[in-house]
Amino acid sequence: MVQKLVLASNNAGKVREFQELLAPFHFQVIPQGELGIPAVEEPHHTFIENALAKARHASAMSGLPALADDSGICAHALDGAPGVYSARYAGLDGDNAANNQKLIAALQGKANRGAHYVCALVMVNSTNDPEPLIVQARWYGQIVDEPQGDRGFGYDPHFFIPELGKTVAQLEPAEKNQISHRGQALRELITQLQVRAQYA
Amino acid sequence: MVQKLVLASNNAGKVREFQELLAPFHFQVIPQGELGIPAVEEPHHTFIENALAKARHASAMSGLPALADDSGICAHALDGAPGVYSARYAGLDGDNAANNQKLIAALQGKANRGAHYVCALVMVNSTNDPEPLIVQARWYGQIVDEPQGDRGFGYDPHFFIPELGKTVAQLEPAEKNQISHRGQALRELITQLQVRAQYA
Repeated sequence: MVQKLVLASNNAGKVREFQELLAPFHFQVIPQGELGIPAVEEPHHTFIENALAKARHASAMSGLPALADDSGICAHALDGAPGVYSARYAGLDGDNAANNQKLIAALQGKANRGAHYVCALVMVNSTNDPEPLIVQARWYGQIVDEPQGDRGFGYDPHFFIPELGKTVAQLEPAEKNQISHRGQALRELITQLQVRAQYA
Repeated sequence: MVQKLVLASNNAGKVREFQELLAPFHFQVIPQGELGIPAVEEPHHTFIENALAKARHASAMSGLPALADDSGICAHALDGAPGVYSARYAGLDGDNAANNQKLIAALQGKANRGAHYVCALVMVNSTNDPEPLIVQARWYGQIVDEPQGDRGFGYDPHFFIPELGKTVAQLEPAEKNQISHRGQALRELITQLQVRAQYA
């Protein structure tokens, strides 16, 4: 049986990744934009609470279970900035290029290039769900000044994974999904769904 | 190095379990009551958000990292009640006996005795922590009318684990901690702490 699941994101890159990642699990992922559901505010300073707000909003508007993601990049030399502001680092009108430019400028002269991507995922059955599924994963790497690669989205061209000798924008989608913050978080979410299903 | 950690609970049973469970991990667990920190409201309908509110409050009052637990029992025939209200099911003046009595009364005539304990744990470094450690675990069992055993606390005498042929109140503390919702959640939290420590 295929279960409908509203995805509380209008980010084309994320929608594509979720559809790829959830395809094997009998979920019909419906981006909220297809239902006319607008984006909601992200007023919190934690990824988890922003994801919860987005999931509840999408579920309330659709009457369906909803999955939301909140994610970002945290530079260790910048006390975790841009963090929850990653998508709007260069302002609400900023695009990926402007965000990356601002991050590289902020890191000039900093020796510590360590950073991590974070992905928080929240799945709710309804707005009243007392036990939302909640997971959070990190993906560690280094921020490089020169962009490399043309895949992925967001900060991927500047996020270098030392173990692979590549930036994330140089990875094939399947390779990225295998190890990314979002892939890790989604696999953990699916494990938790499977445990619950045993007792349903 | 021993790290001080404020425990945002004044429940003697929980304090004892956390001290046992965290003893091997170089945490000095300080119950918030020892610092004069009062309990905070638990206004949310999710375990996770109540735990987050408690952890932030304890951290704000102490200036230390804080760990909070929110837990309860969810009866499947009662749409998950008492859930987040488990500790106050029979009212704010109710004790374990009154709560258990109310639960057994609510289940009279119900064929489905399935239930699960839930434990949500949240650890924050400070009130501004953008990535609180958040975990949630379930422990499945059956609610029995006749109490058995005198260990544990809360609903333990009525929470029967079919695989063990015992109620939770009949388990030795070490046996309970090995498999309980709180034990599972805390082990997951410690795994996440260890992963982060590799990159710190």
